[in-house]
Amino acid sequence: MVAQLNQSEREAALAQLPDWEYDEKRDAISRSFRFADFTQAYAFMSRVALHAEKADHHPEWFNVYNRVDITLTTHDAGENGGLSQRDIDLATTIETFL
Amino acid sequence: MVAQLNQSEREAALAQLPDWEYDEKRDAISRSFRFADFTQAYAFMSRVALHAEKADHHPEWFNVYNRVDITLTTHDAGENGGLSQRDIDLATTIETFL
Repeated sequence: MVAQLNQSEREAALAQLPDWEYDEKRDAISRSFRFADFTQAYAFMSRVALHAEKADHHPEWFNVYNRVDITLTTHDAGENGGLSQRDIDLATTIETFL
Repeated sequence: MVAQLNQSEREAALAQLPDWEYDEKRDAISRSFRFADFTQAYAFMSRVALHAEKADHHPEWFNVYNRVDITLTTHDAGENGGLSQRDIDLATTIETFL
C-alpha cells in the first residue's frame, strides 16, 4: 500500500503544479495538453510512457489528434485509491517534457 | 468533406467487425482491448499511431495500464461528423495488429 497524501501534503504539492486541477471526488490530479499536431502529441505521450514504465507508475490518459488529457492517481493508495507522492513525482516529470 | 456511410453500408461494414460496438448517438464505433501489461498496450498503441499518421486518420483513445479503449469516427463526415469508410479501414487494420 502506498501512502495517500494528507491535506497539507497535497496542498503543498499542488502549489508547485499550478496547471494541474485537483479532482476531490477521485483524489486525483489532471491536466489537458495541446500540441501542434498528432505527431507532437504522440511524441510527448511516448516520453511519458517510457518514464512511467521505468517508474512503474502509469497515467490514465485520453488522446484525440493534438490533445492529451492526463489523470494521475494511485490505485493502491488509501482504501479506494488516491493521490500519492508517486503522482506528484510523475506530474513534476511530465512538466519537464513540455 | 468525407462521405458518411449510409445505413446499409454501415451494417455491411460492421458485420465484418463483430468485436466493435456501434454508438448510434455519435455515429462512431468503439472497442476496448486488454493486454498483458502496459508495455504491450503501448506497443499496440504505437503501431496504431504510426498507421493512423500515415493514413491521416486518427483515433480517439483512452489508456490505463493494460487497457486501451478506441473510438473511431470521422470529424468531417456529414454535418456533425460520423462513421465513414476511413473508420472501417482503420478498425480493419487495427484488428490485424492483435
